[in-house]
Amino acid sequence: MTGIKKEPDALVADRSTLHRVFLRPEDETCRQTLVKYMEQILFGLHDFLNKHVGVTEEISLIKLAEEYTDTTINQNPQKKLADVIKDIIDEIAPRAVNVASPYFIGHMTSAIPFFMVHLKAITAALNQNVIKLETSKVLSILEKQILAKIHRMVFNFDDNFYRTHVQNTQTTLGVFTTGGTTANLTALWIARNKLFPAKGTFENIEKNGLFAALKAHGLERVVVLVSKRGHYSLKKAGGILGIGHENIIPVDIDSNRSIDLVKLKNKIREIQADKKTKIMAIIGIAGATETGIIDPLPELAKICKIHGIHFHVDAAWGGPVLLSEKYYHLLKGIEQADSVTIDCHKQFYMPMSSGMVYFKDPKALDRIVYHAKYVNRPGSVDLGIKTLEGSREANSLILDSALKIMGSRGYALMIEHGIETAQHFAKMIKQRPVFQLVTKPQLNILTYRFVPEKIQKKLDYADKKQRQDIDAILDNINKQIQRIQREAGKSFVSRTRLKACLDDDHDVVVLRTVIMNPMTDLKILEEILDEQEAIALNIWDS
Amino acid sequence: MTGIKKEPDALVADRSTLHRVFLRPEDETCRQTLVKYMEQILFGLHDFLNKHVGVTEEISLIKLAEEYTDTTINQNPQKKLADVIKDIIDEIAPRAVNVASPYFIGHMTSAIPFFMVHLKAITAALNQNVIKLETSKVLSILEKQILAKIHRMVFNFDDNFYRTHVQNTQTTLGVFTTGGTTANLTALWIARNKLFPAKGTFENIEKNGLFAALKAHGLERVVVLVSKRGHYSLKKAGGILGIGHENIIPVDIDSNRSIDLVKLKNKIREIQADKKTKIMAIIGIAGATETGIIDPLPELAKICKIHGIHFHVDAAWGGPVLLSEKYYHLLKGIEQADSVTIDCHKQFYMPMSSGMVYFKDPKALDRIVYHAKYVNRPGSVDLGIKTLEGSREANSLILDSALKIMGSRGYALMIEHGIETAQHFAKMIKQRPVFQLVTKPQLNILTYRFVPEKIQKKLDYADKKQRQDIDAILDNINKQIQRIQREAGKSFVSRTRLKACLDDDHDVVVLRTVIMNPMTDLKILEEILDEQEAIALNIWDS
Repeated sequence: MTGIKKEPDALVADRSTLHRVFLRPEDETCRQTLVKYMEQILFGLHDFLNKHVGVTEEISLIKLAEEYTDTTINQNPQKKLADVIKDIIDEIAPRAVNVASPYFIGHMTSAIPFFMVHLKAITAALNQNVIKLETSKVLSILEKQILAKIHRMVFNFDDNFYRTHVQNTQTTLGVFTTGGTTANLTALWIARNKLFPAKGTFENIEKNGLFAALKAHGLERVVVLVSKRGHYSLKKAGGILGIGHENIIPVDIDSNRSIDLVKLKNKIREIQADKKTKIMAIIGIAGATETGIIDPLPELAKICKIHGIHFHVDAAWGGPVLLSEKYYHLLKGIEQADSVTIDCHKQFYMPMSSGMVYFKDPKALDRIVYHAKYVNRPGSVDLGIKTLEGSREANSLILDSALKIMGSRGYALMIEHGIETAQHFAKMIKQRPVFQLVTKPQLNILTYRFVPEKIQKKLDYADKKQRQDIDAILDNINKQIQRIQREAGKSFVSRTRLKACLDDDHDVVVLRTVIMNPMTDLKILEEILDEQEAIALNIWDS
Repeated sequence: MTGIKKEPDALVADRSTLHRVFLRPEDETCRQTLVKYMEQILFGLHDFLNKHVGVTEEISLIKLAEEYTDTTINQNPQKKLADVIKDIIDEIAPRAVNVASPYFIGHMTSAIPFFMVHLKAITAALNQNVIKLETSKVLSILEKQILAKIHRMVFNFDDNFYRTHVQNTQTTLGVFTTGGTTANLTALWIARNKLFPAKGTFENIEKNGLFAALKAHGLERVVVLVSKRGHYSLKKAGGILGIGHENIIPVDIDSNRSIDLVKLKNKIREIQADKKTKIMAIIGIAGATETGIIDPLPELAKICKIHGIHFHVDAAWGGPVLLSEKYYHLLKGIEQADSVTIDCHKQFYMPMSSGMVYFKDPKALDRIVYHAKYVNRPGSVDLGIKTLEGSREANSLILDSALKIMGSRGYALMIEHGIETAQHFAKMIKQRPVFQLVTKPQLNILTYRFVPEKIQKKLDYADKKQRQDIDAILDNINKQIQRIQREAGKSFVSRTRLKACLDDDHDVVVLRTVIMNPMTDLKILEEILDEQEAIALNIWDS
């Protein structure tokens, strides 16, 4: 009973209030009130969502933070429901980031179709918990179906395979997670567990632990190989799983900015020479977070097959490209993966937080089965037996409904818009003498930076040391461009650090854009470049 | 491009449709349509939520599953939005489980206040990603505030402490997770990482891995001690973290059905005698999933202090009891924990999926910091630097709003209703000669079973072997009671296995009830017992 503010208040929490907030509205007046709130939500927010980005508007972060320092909980209600909703619309929304703006092209978060909000509300109202059949029933069954649909999109086994597994309570084609991070973690968890067969008193790593596993097999280290463009969740997974994040080994990239296969093969040879170390998995990226680049998946699949190594594809970003007839070929080889991560809240345009991980082998997830006596008993349909997460909302209902409403073609249109708009955007950047395109878009992500023409020429003839010095100056300007544009509140691109030239041994600051909002068009992109150019020249001239 | 059904269809996915689903409704007609959908959702579901439980209604699972076997994705839209929503209301909802029914008292999922649906819809519409400030702004700041409020509820440091930390970008009082499972996993992750100081070439376990850590410290095993009533997510965390789930060691319970302190101390002594093993954490349960029992937290805190062991409290269920002036004393000792798990989707009555984990030390989470160049740079406000999960929705907005709408007293009323109704229910069970109360409610969970009077007498005088034989018969009947009642579709209790008598060496099947719905009253509980008694006597007589 601590940290509670006890002063008497105008509003009182009593049983009748309590019943009112639980009871569904029975009469016409209540009904109208409920709808009024929802109208406020949908249309009050609408005004906000029609405005510009506002990552930081006039109010600075420090000043903003000062308003959120009261750390006591009120004993009685502070506000009526209507006022709380009004406050969110008037006070919170304008200080949130308008990720739905077509001028917000800096991150993998964007506008979502408006019906997604309806679907999320339905999911919340049903409040099913898909951890177990007893709290979800048809939603568990529906989830198995949609998992089979996406599995088929990725692996494309025959009808008979899917007939066998779609509603099979003994097998699992994939699981929903809360995002790509736990999807990747789940995939590597499985990869780790299948690496160590029983030996002597050692049964399995899940039960006996990593130390016992390594000791039984005369090993000291397990490693994962992934291009240096791998998402940071992979290092985190290495830390969590007890592998150690230094053992998630980055492999350099080649001139395509995807994993360098020669260096990968050398690395494999080097590791295999060390009899104390074993390779747990090789990861192919299908849409790198920073550059959108796709690794050569068929070649990676071949290497993994030769060496008997688990092949994971992190398609958190790129997975839904498989729905496009025009571009699905970019992901060729994904069907040879042992496991595949795909996010729902990225290019499936679903609200936060939802991801998925798929396994080629319908028995792969048996390596992480956990039961409880009160629920999730062996052999049951309970989906929670084989998931990292426990209680889970039925995000599968949203994905299933969205696919019915949009069709694969609807998703494909968005994917194609992104890829083709990014290609045009790249041309636009090349045409402007003050910008340098650093990574061209293979999907819908590209990076570039401000480099005035005469500096560009200097760079061409500079030696390593000189390049480094020039780049340091440019880094500073590009950082400022990104910050000033963000603070102006109209547009937003992000920034990261990459090699401008693959021969360099230093990274430079680049501006990064992700074109996923179907409302982001070439006119908007021109405006964004205009603004950046104006900011840049202003800095350059001063 | 696989698993896509390509036949021509009535509906077509084209750019104009695409724009319609993204564009917010501009004119009055669109506006009305949008509201109409939301009305359908709120009131169409209302009819369903007013009906009885229906865990399994007439349609059997196998038959139900047969309807969900198509594994192709349609190329064009299968249905209009209105029809998809209509289908959910007409086809999905009636086959879901009505967890909101006051007759659904079997699991920790219940009715949620109706405004929670509104708040979830707002959160989805804003679609902020609190992984980083650039996609959340004020929501990151609000999240830090609500984390401080709940930290204060648990640990109750002074004003100065909270002034220092509430908006401090260098420290973290806790994090939101997607539920108790990842909250417990995060707590044990921290406990694991702080166990191994740098030594020689070994820097830290997160970087170098578990094998290197144990080797550097001359160890072979780390263990966690928790009562046998510990949630199964703890074993899962042991598996994931590389500890091995057999090293999450269950300690027996005493006559209070909470952890047996004598046996715990013996176990500690035994482990400490083995120089190759180190204790990583001791866990106190504040509301066991099966029985609602709370471990003696002050005594556990004392033991942990003496031995310098990380003390984690799993208050996923019981945490919000701290909001009740009448019952917060039950959790005394929680303020001495190093880490505490509390779920939002349990007794904070929030929609799935939301949990939290708190740390006494505002620097504790520094042990799991992960950065990325494109985002979450060191020293930033970005909340995703210190979380297990990556992208996350702003569930903090829902908790903050709910506390404003209800006040701590509003929550307390629900908590108190649950505890006191469970106490009355226990009396009711004792008064009926055909039932045996197996675990009495310390909070709002109790277990009991059907035992006809004359069998009860037999049990009293039976030896171990005889008891086992009788219990086997009773187990069978109690399983049937639970199943038949569930299938009848009016009410739902769950079942688990516990010792009926602590001297026994076998578990028995018990019926388990969780009283969390404020609409569940004594009349309803009488009805549920009546139904069970009728089913039981019908089996018994035949």
